[in-house]
Amino acid sequence: MAHEQHQQLLETLHDCMAACNHCFDACLKEDDVKMMAECIRLDRECADMCAYLEQAITRNSPFVSQLAKVCAEICQTCGDECQKHADMHDHCKRCAEACHKCAEACRSIA
Amino acid sequence: MAHEQHQQLLETLHDCMAACNHCFDACLKEDDVKMMAECIRLDRECADMCAYLEQAITRNSPFVSQLAKVCAEICQTCGDECQKHADMHDHCKRCAEACHKCAEACRSIA
Amino acid sequence: MAHEQHQQLLETLHDCMAACNHCFDACLKEDDVKMMAECIRLDRECADMCAYLEQAITRNSPFVSQLAKVCAEICQTCGDECQKHADMHDHCKRCAEACHKCAEACRSIA
Amino acid sequence: MAHEQHQQLLETLHDCMAACNHCFDACLKEDDVKMMAECIRLDRECADMCAYLEQAITRNSPFVSQLAKVCAEICQTCGDECQKHADMHDHCKRCAEACHKCAEACRSIA
Repeated sequence: MAHEQHQQLLETLHDCMAACNHCFDACLKEDDVKMMAECIRLDRECADMCAYLEQAITRNSPFVSQLAKVCAEICQTCGDECQKHADMHDHCKRCAEACHKCAEACRSIA
Repeated sequence: MAHEQHQQLLETLHDCMAACNHCFDACLKEDDVKMMAECIRLDRECADMCAYLEQAITRNSPFVSQLAKVCAEICQTCGDECQKHADMHDHCKRCAEACHKCAEACRSIA
Repeated sequence: MAHEQHQQLLETLHDCMAACNHCFDACLKEDDVKMMAECIRLDRECADMCAYLEQAITRNSPFVSQLAKVCAEICQTCGDECQKHADMHDHCKRCAEACHKCAEACRSIA
Repeated sequence: MAHEQHQQLLETLHDCMAACNHCFDACLKEDDVKMMAECIRLDRECADMCAYLEQAITRNSPFVSQLAKVCAEICQTCGDECQKHADMHDHCKRCAEACHKCAEACRSIA
């Protein structure tokens, strides 16, 4: 992985992790928490996996490619769920964008 | 830390992590998700910290005592929140018991 | 996944995580640290992934199968490396056994 | 915590995590691995704690202050160790700088 691509990917993962955790927190404060249950679940899945992959990349893990493949799938699933609520909640809209961008970035190195 | 105390603590941390994650999953499936929002938030906090401390202990981290102090506080807070729902939800009752037991175990090594 | 298989897998993952972290700590104290460098690197990879999968299973993650596939590969690689040092270091021997057992368990649910 | 301070802290934590993991990887490739053993151990401690705190902050954890206090101590310890090797290894020099900067940032919110 070229250094520049590496830096870009780390930033994308970090943004996705932060967007997912912000969405997790915001969903738990919404009135319609029940409607957001799957979003809350997937936000945690996605934030944890992005954080894990950030660490794996920076420690030069031999398993980055395999982890990126799983991360891409998790990001895609979380982004698709958040997209359903994008009209109602701005945190979901921003999270969906960050997740879909990250899914694409992860696929490119998987 | 004596070997036996060490093994006991690892088991207690593992049980607490598992109970919190089970409660997290079960709360997200309840009808009254809104009422469980703080429980969901704290279940994640507590599961993550117990898992972190398990790893710190097994890798002989120099910071086990400081981490155990924070873990004790998180376990206590999560256990107190789950206790409020113990009459309604069995997963909360079992989580509260696991958290309070773990808080005590963590305090003993903090 | 049946409940009994689930409990068995959690125990196997926990044992592997603990063995890897113990091996990580012990390798760093050996005289021949240089010879153990790859072991140290893989111990961390394996402990982190097993701990991650433990959490994923207990929170009923939708991605357990995909994560278990990666975990199986990491456990196998770590176990193979530790096996090379099994004659010289008891912690490597025990780690290799725990990793190979865990690799097989993960493959069975991947 | 004001939004700007928050963003600055997340960046500092991320930089410290990345510097520690890069140092971990580089130390394992050095000829004098034995001399770097404590550095390798503390790099992992510090990277893991910074990554943990990044997640805690972004999910609006109620325990950020307590975690930041522990993180500050870990960053300081890791930075002090890396500083000893700063003349010989550029990765240690950069890691020491990132750790000391992060220790200060963590103390300010602890």
